[in-house]
Amino acid sequence: MSADDFVVTPWHVEGDIDYDKLIKQFGTQKISPELLARIQKITGEDHFMLRRGIFFSHREMNRILDDYEKGNKFFLYTGRGPSGHTHIGHLVPWVFAKWLQEKFDVNMYFQLTDDEKFFSKPNLTLEETKNFAYENALDFIALGFKPEKTKIIINTRNIQTLYPIAAQVAKKINFSNTKATFGFTNETNLGMIFYTSLQSAPCFIEDKPVLIPLGVDQDPHFRLTRDIAPKIGKEKPALIHNIMIPALEGPGGKMSASDENGTVYTTDAPNVVKKKINKYAFSGGQPDLEQHRKLGGNPDIDVSYQYLRIFFEPDDNKLKSIYEDYKSGKLLSGELKAILIEKMNEFLAVHQENREKAKDKIDEFLFENK
Amino acid sequence: MSADDFVVTPWHVEGDIDYDKLIKQFGTQKISPELLARIQKITGEDHFMLRRGIFFSHREMNRILDDYEKGNKFFLYTGRGPSGHTHIGHLVPWVFAKWLQEKFDVNMYFQLTDDEKFFSKPNLTLEETKNFAYENALDFIALGFKPEKTKIIINTRNIQTLYPIAAQVAKKINFSNTKATFGFTNETNLGMIFYTSLQSAPCFIEDKPVLIPLGVDQDPHFRLTRDIAPKIGKEKPALIHNIMIPALEGPGGKMSASDENGTVYTTDAPNVVKKKINKYAFSGGQPDLEQHRKLGGNPDIDVSYQYLRIFFEPDDNKLKSIYEDYKSGKLLSGELKAILIEKMNEFLAVHQENREKAKDKIDEFLFENK
Repeated sequence: MSADDFVVTPWHVEGDIDYDKLIKQFGTQKISPELLARIQKITGEDHFMLRRGIFFSHREMNRILDDYEKGNKFFLYTGRGPSGHTHIGHLVPWVFAKWLQEKFDVNMYFQLTDDEKFFSKPNLTLEETKNFAYENALDFIALGFKPEKTKIIINTRNIQTLYPIAAQVAKKINFSNTKATFGFTNETNLGMIFYTSLQSAPCFIEDKPVLIPLGVDQDPHFRLTRDIAPKIGKEKPALIHNIMIPALEGPGGKMSASDENGTVYTTDAPNVVKKKINKYAFSGGQPDLEQHRKLGGNPDIDVSYQYLRIFFEPDDNKLKSIYEDYKSGKLLSGELKAILIEKMNEFLAVHQENREKAKDKIDEFLFENK
Repeated sequence: MSADDFVVTPWHVEGDIDYDKLIKQFGTQKISPELLARIQKITGEDHFMLRRGIFFSHREMNRILDDYEKGNKFFLYTGRGPSGHTHIGHLVPWVFAKWLQEKFDVNMYFQLTDDEKFFSKPNLTLEETKNFAYENALDFIALGFKPEKTKIIINTRNIQTLYPIAAQVAKKINFSNTKATFGFTNETNLGMIFYTSLQSAPCFIEDKPVLIPLGVDQDPHFRLTRDIAPKIGKEKPALIHNIMIPALEGPGGKMSASDENGTVYTTDAPNVVKKKINKYAFSGGQPDLEQHRKLGGNPDIDVSYQYLRIFFEPDDNKLKSIYEDYKSGKLLSGELKAILIEKMNEFLAVHQENREKAKDKIDEFLFENK
């Protein structure tokens, strides 16, 4: 643990994250009211994830918008480490990326890092992480991306394209840099050490500026990329960061695909979702009904409320009523959970149908090596 | 410099190498008279490079022969780092590999490590090393390999095949291992750190034992591979090592493709060869004619004599006469050089013709990703 009592790296998130401190620690920019207004003006829409600070930080988003307003298009890039099935938390940056793609009408690359998860998880084989990559791709496609403008990169499948780009990056990063950025040690394996250059590679897959919407834990990779970009004659990637999505069992960590109980998977059946939320979702309510009616609950630490805020209730008025009712004690924890369960199962019913259809569409989305 | 006053690593060879000490330092086996006799019996031939100790050391050559005698075929693998044009010294392990291939009737893989040379040479681009890879491939093909049994791997061209194999290796090697094996430091770039796993990959490209004829400076890579092989359920590669080929300007280093004067390239014209040998080939002769006739020359340090011994004069009787005549003072340095120049230009006339023809054959030799 750092002196700040929280740790955020691409492979380890722990503690109660103070996002203002994290912005200082990482050296990013907070999304200002001016930037919010500018995005709203250009897109003609006030996205709730921006308005509510789910996306809270950025690097050079203003430059991307300057260029865009001059008529120069950028492209989008985000990704996922396929260590297991997709869970609800993963969808946050993807849904936001889709909104950006529609509003700006730009290309999108989605990277599935099967090699990374093979290197970082002692018990996973490359076949397993590659299978998870295909499973995760279905969830991405299910969100409604268009194959004409959206390509899915699977690292081991597209290494022929990625490696020569990654090599340019790898030549400019030394072991010291990775120690400072990721906390690597002499015991870190060679795959993990090299890997960051493969996560950089899609930044340079088109000769245009890139904007990366992503969880803030992934920022360190692109801090390195941004240092290297001018050295290889390229533009620095711009980033827009979302907060970590809390695990069911409470804040102080991101939702982890390897913790079955702490996670709602996109493939969970309605009764499983109901059981998981009722049993595991950390509650901000009081120990008994009488006290809850009297003292009220704490929505700010209640995971069910947070999921509504982050993803499932875009309507500010409805969210505000829930907040106030819960705080006043009018809304019980079981009732709050019931709201989330209903919203989640509504979402998942559609998602799961689209996910089935995605199986026939996946080939259109897969990036082909030249 | 080590306490032994010489250094041998894949990227740096310096000093006067004591091969018996090197065998101890690396932990390899000297090729014994029994092993020599065994190879001679199986192949029906007494190859001069074995008889003269040009190939002097091995790892588990006996296991390869045991397997072979039981009817289990192995395959051959060697390679080259394409940092420049091919020179005479590079041909030594290739010519020997060809002999092994013919005698044992086995498949052969030749790896051109364009990525490695890009990572290790600050001033070379990946385009340059890839171009050298194609140039070097022509020299390999010119030696007479058959495309049915011989495939050329170019790392950036075949990374789609190599990377998933390399990943298995990379997961089992940590930074400490590479520090101990190659002397890497915190300043070593990520490409160099990862690279050894790509040099390992062809060892596992067929599900058979592999025998690697190679310069002894490359042994450290395969020491790591041999440590890892059982951990990934594979057989250890067996090796047979040749000595370092001296530069024109004298012993105490291997012939380097980047030192123009110290190197005869396979593409040099006859008059260039003549000029280089006459001007730069380190002589074991006396300072003047009178002293030479009286005291005689020293063939053991004379580079022209060494080239005849290593490559250009397979006939032991003829070599012996040259040795004795030079030592007695009967043969002058200029005359010794003239013998080498004639032999070398005879060889290169044929080689350069075959090298031209190789341009039409290269596609048959290039390994295709599945």
